[in-house]
Amino acid sequence: MTRLKGFQKLTSTDEAMIKWLNILKINKFEEIQIPIKEALNRVLSSDIIVNQDLPRFDKSAVDGYALLAEDTIGASQFKSITLNLTTTKKIFTKQAIQVWTGNPIPEGADSVVMMENTKKHNSQLEIYTQLPKWANVSKKGEDVKTGEIGLTSGTRLKPHHLALIAALGYTSIKVAKKPRIAVLATGNELVDSGGSISNGKIFESNRITISGLCKELDSEPIDLGIAKDDINDLSEKISLGLKKCDVLITTGGTSVGQFDLLPEVINNLGNPGVIVHGMALRPAMPTGLAVVKGKPILILSGNPVAAMIGFEVFMRPLISKMLGLTSDKRQTINGIMNRKVATRLGRKTYLRVQVLRKNKNFFVEPISARGSSILSSMTKANGFVVVPSNREGIRKGELVSVQLFGSVEN
Amino acid sequence: MTRLKGFQKLTSTDEAMIKWLNILKINKFEEIQIPIKEALNRVLSSDIIVNQDLPRFDKSAVDGYALLAEDTIGASQFKSITLNLTTTKKIFTKQAIQVWTGNPIPEGADSVVMMENTKKHNSQLEIYTQLPKWANVSKKGEDVKTGEIGLTSGTRLKPHHLALIAALGYTSIKVAKKPRIAVLATGNELVDSGGSISNGKIFESNRITISGLCKELDSEPIDLGIAKDDINDLSEKISLGLKKCDVLITTGGTSVGQFDLLPEVINNLGNPGVIVHGMALRPAMPTGLAVVKGKPILILSGNPVAAMIGFEVFMRPLISKMLGLTSDKRQTINGIMNRKVATRLGRKTYLRVQVLRKNKNFFVEPISARGSSILSSMTKANGFVVVPSNREGIRKGELVSVQLFGSVEN
Repeated sequence: MTRLKGFQKLTSTDEAMIKWLNILKINKFEEIQIPIKEALNRVLSSDIIVNQDLPRFDKSAVDGYALLAEDTIGASQFKSITLNLTTTKKIFTKQAIQVWTGNPIPEGADSVVMMENTKKHNSQLEIYTQLPKWANVSKKGEDVKTGEIGLTSGTRLKPHHLALIAALGYTSIKVAKKPRIAVLATGNELVDSGGSISNGKIFESNRITISGLCKELDSEPIDLGIAKDDINDLSEKISLGLKKCDVLITTGGTSVGQFDLLPEVINNLGNPGVIVHGMALRPAMPTGLAVVKGKPILILSGNPVAAMIGFEVFMRPLISKMLGLTSDKRQTINGIMNRKVATRLGRKTYLRVQVLRKNKNFFVEPISARGSSILSSMTKANGFVVVPSNREGIRKGELVSVQLFGSVEN
Repeated sequence: MTRLKGFQKLTSTDEAMIKWLNILKINKFEEIQIPIKEALNRVLSSDIIVNQDLPRFDKSAVDGYALLAEDTIGASQFKSITLNLTTTKKIFTKQAIQVWTGNPIPEGADSVVMMENTKKHNSQLEIYTQLPKWANVSKKGEDVKTGEIGLTSGTRLKPHHLALIAALGYTSIKVAKKPRIAVLATGNELVDSGGSISNGKIFESNRITISGLCKELDSEPIDLGIAKDDINDLSEKISLGLKKCDVLITTGGTSVGQFDLLPEVINNLGNPGVIVHGMALRPAMPTGLAVVKGKPILILSGNPVAAMIGFEVFMRPLISKMLGLTSDKRQTINGIMNRKVATRLGRKTYLRVQVLRKNKNFFVEPISARGSSILSSMTKANGFVVVPSNREGIRKGELVSVQLFGSVEN
């Protein structure tokens, strides 16, 4: 028995990624200044330094009367103490001034009695409770203080982060520029969705999927269309793409068959060309990594599931690094395996699983699917379980960590 | 002791929500047809019915030779069987045709032998393995079958969903229209970010936060600006907003102080006006729900943390209902409380917590913060723990469910 064709050697994904990054030497990506109204989900590229104390002044946390705490000593539900109401901006001993939630504390006062603990008689105020100093006062700087770091670089900006930025008075901030990612599908069998289709052809679906994954990571996809399995067409489209992009992704043409011309085409476009081809990864073994003219190229399988997993393994950390994100991981949860699954020793395996929640516990149901082209193995799933290459599977009942890509029904 | 002002009665959030929804009678929201290129994160409003089998034809899952499985009986590593290579479109017994991954299976063939299990001699093919029927064949319809439901209405579309839609040949789909949500901040103390600021004033931060929360839920915020604590200004801006929106949200002016004019203004604009005001909820007690001219109005506290939590409790389920989303919950995880926290009996409490991951386990650190205006209590947090109103707190070491709004460092 002979092995006519095939990958001569499979590389571990970790080794491949290190090799790629060593050549690319990516530091932090370019930053741009944008209005905070456009900043949702962008990645902060410089720390936000607190430029003023919040609150900006001592303020009342309640509706009530500002006064001196020492004037309330001995007051209780059974024995009131009476102060004089004033309307001046400053108070002295035995005086009180009405304040509303959020009002600055008048000079001289050091606490606020809540309205419901008082009774007003013309210009006299009866007080029925003893107050400690600074009772019901939000102290200047108790939220954040001038000079401290409000938000750190690498934060993906969510609404609650924007709240702090706006409260500090900023109208624009610096964020990482969106990497431009060119996406090219290759294959004679591919037809654009919507057209008519003849036997043996399939509708191309990888570009929209990969573009969506790029957008989720705050980068800007560029659609390069479909290339034929033809050296000239491939060379032309990839050369054009490299001029417009920061990263290029291809799908298809990366196995070892007759029409798998991509590695050859890429090697002809510039050094070092393809640096790793063939991964110890299931699915997505035919994934390749290349560098041409200093730009990274990710060579993905044409099989849609393998393409998504190749993106997950190599593009997610690459884009995260470009953006300066502090974490490149998806949200993980812990769950209990419903069934045992066998995996192949020596291959890192991405199992597609459906996480279900029952009585507060998470259960993990592996999706049965033979091939890397079965789309419903992804649409029925909401997460990946990554089985390391030194394992031969996962036991029923084992606690596993799931990387979520879809929502879990509660 | 007298209670001068205050909410006469606090309503449970569940009771309040039911009351609101009963008046609003929201069914599914309007749907619109959009190109799939714009469909990422939109909510599918009609089931995607599979319009063609996938794969569209029996196809080879490997590079190799198509043949009849029965012709390989008895073949092994030690004893080969020889077939005749042909190049016709149809094969008969004792014949084989070369096929590449993804190629249609030629008529007459029922399995594919992998290239590495063969040896070619001119027009003869030696085969070193016995194959079961349909070996290495992706059967027509094994992914999805014509007529079945590919994706259900209410799905928030992620890249892997778009993959299936594109593979079925669709170029446009029906999604829920984005509800238009008008956001008005109120308060004499508020100044727009970026301007100069005098003592006693604060930079307004609720509009950008609430707008961000709206966008995350696939709705379209409309900025109504800042209104003064003035009946005419409030009436005018709210009337204008109601004409442009499907839902209106106000922040501030909802407590029971001198300048809390909103409930009165809203009641004057139409029936039934304010239906619940004052919630058994911490923070965010002064939240109110109203309906004017058939449109829902959510009256949020001016305190930024209370505003976010009021949105979380009432607007998230309302928008989810409008969009027809199958789940209105945030992703939850289970974690172990690092410290005990006391809460007030009779109030549902939203604790801000920071979830940390250590050795595969999740630990939950409550964020200490006194007031509902402490923004850093949100920026330091990544989730809520909801303590029900019949509890007085959570014990140290207790397993709690956390609703995540930020990422957990792995």
